[in-house]
Parts: sequence; C-alpha cells; structure tokens
Amino acid sequence: MTKARLLDNIRKKNSYLCVGLDVDLNKIPRHLLKEKDPVFAFNRQIIDATADHCVAFKPNIAFYEALGPGGWESLAKTVEYIPGDIFTIADAKRGDIGNTAGLYARAFFETLDFDSITVAPYMGHDSVMPFLEFEGKWVILLAHTSNAGSQDFQLIRNEDSGRTLFAEVIEKSKTWGSSEQIMYVVGATQADRIAEIRKMAPDHFFLVPGVGAQGGDLQAVSREGMNAGCGLLVNNTRAIIYASSGTDFASMAKKEAFKMHQEMERYLEQYLPA
Amino acid sequence: MTKARLLDNIRKKNSYLCVGLDVDLNKIPRHLLKEKDPVFAFNRQIIDATADHCVAFKPNIAFYEALGPGGWESLAKTVEYIPGDIFTIADAKRGDIGNTAGLYARAFFETLDFDSITVAPYMGHDSVMPFLEFEGKWVILLAHTSNAGSQDFQLIRNEDSGRTLFAEVIEKSKTWGSSEQIMYVVGATQADRIAEIRKMAPDHFFLVPGVGAQGGDLQAVSREGMNAGCGLLVNNTRAIIYASSGTDFASMAKKEAFKMHQEMERYLEQYLPA
Repeated sequence: MTKARLLDNIRKKNSYLCVGLDVDLNKIPRHLLKEKDPVFAFNRQIIDATADHCVAFKPNIAFYEALGPGGWESLAKTVEYIPGDIFTIADAKRGDIGNTAGLYARAFFETLDFDSITVAPYMGHDSVMPFLEFEGKWVILLAHTSNAGSQDFQLIRNEDSGRTLFAEVIEKSKTWGSSEQIMYVVGATQADRIAEIRKMAPDHFFLVPGVGAQGGDLQAVSREGMNAGCGLLVNNTRAIIYASSGTDFASMAKKEAFKMHQEMERYLEQYLPA
Repeated sequence: MTKARLLDNIRKKNSYLCVGLDVDLNKIPRHLLKEKDPVFAFNRQIIDATADHCVAFKPNIAFYEALGPGGWESLAKTVEYIPGDIFTIADAKRGDIGNTAGLYARAFFETLDFDSITVAPYMGHDSVMPFLEFEGKWVILLAHTSNAGSQDFQLIRNEDSGRTLFAEVIEKSKTWGSSEQIMYVVGATQADRIAEIRKMAPDHFFLVPGVGAQGGDLQAVSREGMNAGCGLLVNNTRAIIYASSGTDFASMAKKEAFKMHQEMERYLEQYLPA
C-alpha cells in the first residue's frame, strides 16, 4: 500500500486506529473453541466488527506460531480476510542477515501478502535492506519501544554523536529507504519522547503501541506525534479484542473501537492541517 | 540440555561443530524434489551423514517459515529426528516483550522441543527473561554478529560506560541468567574481537557463525575463544550441506563435516585443558 493511499484511508475514515490481533486461545470466548478454526472464527468476527473504525490490523505472529502449523493456516486466512483498503502489519520483529531477511520478506510479503513487517535493527543495514526491495511494502523498524526493557539498550548514548541508540537507528535507517518504505515503532508511554522523535523523522509514519493497557495517553501522543500526513498508526489490542469474553465479544469490540475512533476524529480535527 | 552434558558430548566426539540446516529448495539436489517432503528428506540424510561429526544442529527458522504451514511440519519432523544427545538451536532471532516472548518460548521449547533459541537483545530484559524460565533450555543472545551491518549499531560506544553496545548486551545479560542458560552469538570474522569477548564472558558458550563461507578462521577462533569448558559451538552451513548438489550430497556433506571435525580434534588437544 502506498503512503498516499494510507493517508486517504485515514482521511476517509477519520481514524488512525490499528487493531492488534493477538489471539490467545485462553482468552477468546469459550463458545468459539467448538469451531474448526477458533482463531480464524474469532478474527473474522473482530474484523467484521471493527473494520469501519480502524485503518490497520496487526497480528502478532508469535500468537500464531505458538499454535504450530495450524496457526499459520489461521494467520493466512486472517490476512486474506482483511479488506483490501486496510493496512496489514505482520508484527514479527524479525531481524536476520541478507538471504535470510529475503526469505522472511518473501514469507510475509508474498506468501502471506502483508503490507508491512516489524523488524529489529540490531544486526544493521543488511538485515533491513532486503525488505525494502518490495514495491508498496513497508518495514516498521523498532526504534523506541514501550516496554520496561527499552531502557536497557535503546537509551545508550553514543559517545561520538551524542545520540541515543534509538536516535542512531532512525538517523542511519533514513539513509536506507524513504518515508514511503520505512515506519518506526515509537512507544506511547512518554509523550515528550514522541515529540523528540517526530523532530528526527518529520515525514515518517510511527506505529505507536502502549496506548490503553500500557498506560499511554492518546491525546498526548496525537498532539506531539501527528504530522501533516497524520503520520500515526496507534495500536490497541487488549481493550478492543478482549472487551468481553462472552458471546457479545464482537459487539463489545466494536464499541471499544468506536470509542477510540471518536476520540481520534477529534484529534484529527484539532491537530491535522486540512 | 545441561552445560555439563553438552561438554560431555564435545569431549566424547572431540568436536564442537554445529551444522546449520538452512534448507533452500533451490539449492537441494533436484532428485529430492520428487519426495513428499523434500526438506525433511534432505535433512534426514544430512543428519544421518553428519551426526557423528557434530554436537549441534541449527535450523534457521526463516527457511522453514518461507514455505508456509508445510515448512513448520518439515521443521517439527527435523527436530524430532535429531538424535537426543545433539544440541538443537532454533535460529529464530526472536525478540518481543513479556507474554509474546513467553509464546515464542513455548513454541520453540515445548511444541518443537528445541534446546535453545537465538534472541535479539534490542528490546531489553523483558524480551529475554521469559525464555530463561524453562529448565535445561538456553537463550543464545546476539552479541557481535558476523555480518557487515554489525558495524551499524553493535559498535556504538556508550558515553557513560565507555563500552560498546555488544559489550553492554553481555554485561547486562550476565545479570539476567547464568552461563548455564545464556550463550552469545559471536561472529568469527575478527579473532581479536573473540578474545575481547572471551574476557567479558569467561564461562559462557559462544555460538560462532562466519567460519567458512564468511571467511572466519577456525584456528584463530579456537585459540582465542576456547575456555576450560570448550565454550565454543562453531557453525558451518553451506560448505557442508551444499557440498554437492548431486545424489552424493550426503556423503559429500559427511566428508566436509569430517574435515572440520578432524581440525577441531587438533584444536581441542592444543587449546582445551585436559
């Protein structure tokens, strides 16, 4: 998907919501366990219920891998089921060299037809470049994540440049591809950090986890992070897909997605230049 | 597998060879493509041919993922087929937070019963700790890799400690678990670097890629990297598994593995205290 088309969808829907599809068999409504493919049965209803309110879906690949070969089939069916105008993110956090990265790219961009994949930057340029060879496909590079462990290495300051590690990741990777190919994962837990990173990457989209369960503030994220092309995909998973564990899970998911959608409508009006 | 048992195997076989199982359908002998599961057919013969000469097998998970659900079945059959005294490494380079890391751990340690998994450190302690809760299982943490891109971030020097990023990874992670649970990936391409890292982690095992095709020197690696418990698993993939593309691929693989085995026998005698 092109950046222009993604922005079109955001403007059309007045939403920059990404719904995480982290399907855990211990958390989905029990009545679905009777289905032949409970994971897909759950996803299908979540997608139907929330597609009007979001512009992206993000399955975390670990949840599917944990189920063995059957999990991959559920994942394939899920990606195929997502409407074509909605941006798809394989949250895989892959990172391996050269030909191996190329294999991951083929697995997620061709076999599964995702629009994007999250990638870990530790191994450097040759672990990222192979993903950039696919037209209309995106790398979403981990920059500053929202977990406690993000403090361990991402904030290390380079004695030569004075920049933090996550800033080095952004500065270096800007030379590897354009803002039509690369996005950054930027945690929502510190709004001032988002403002700082927006200065480093004025044109890039940020995938923002950590709103909701992890305590990030949607208004602060939107105020500090939005650029002229919106530039934000804000993810929410648990508050939406696990809003209810009963037979009403889909309608409750819709209700939660609609709440965020309404909030986003306001922020788009407030912070997005017309 | 415990560290003591791994060292036992090394002493018994006089080898610290790890054979990479990166199975590419474009590279395996053409006659295998007629088989129902060409990937497993290839692996089975490679395992039979090289098991006497190595102490570890390391499938790179990307190669299996690239094949879709069928690839996972080939992988599961392969891990199951590997003799129980041989250490198994899921070269997955995963790295995700908390419950997601836990899912990866279950997928690779329980569903697939690997002894170890390679993990990327970028997200910090909460992306690593969940793997350490499994008894007898190992995390092999990326420290200093052998690819060109390893220069991009791994060598950044922390202005506070004066340590490089890879050294920070080693120093921090030593507080997360013991040398009975954690190994490090240390590229073979610079022997002086291996000596430096051995000083930082005197007791840990290193998984060393980059010997052979990538130009690393086995003798230098062994001289600089070996500790009193051997402390080395040296990987070779292409020179062994793709030694021939004909019907003699297994016997040629054996021949190449035997060559490295003989070299390792000499280095164990030279550098390993009795």
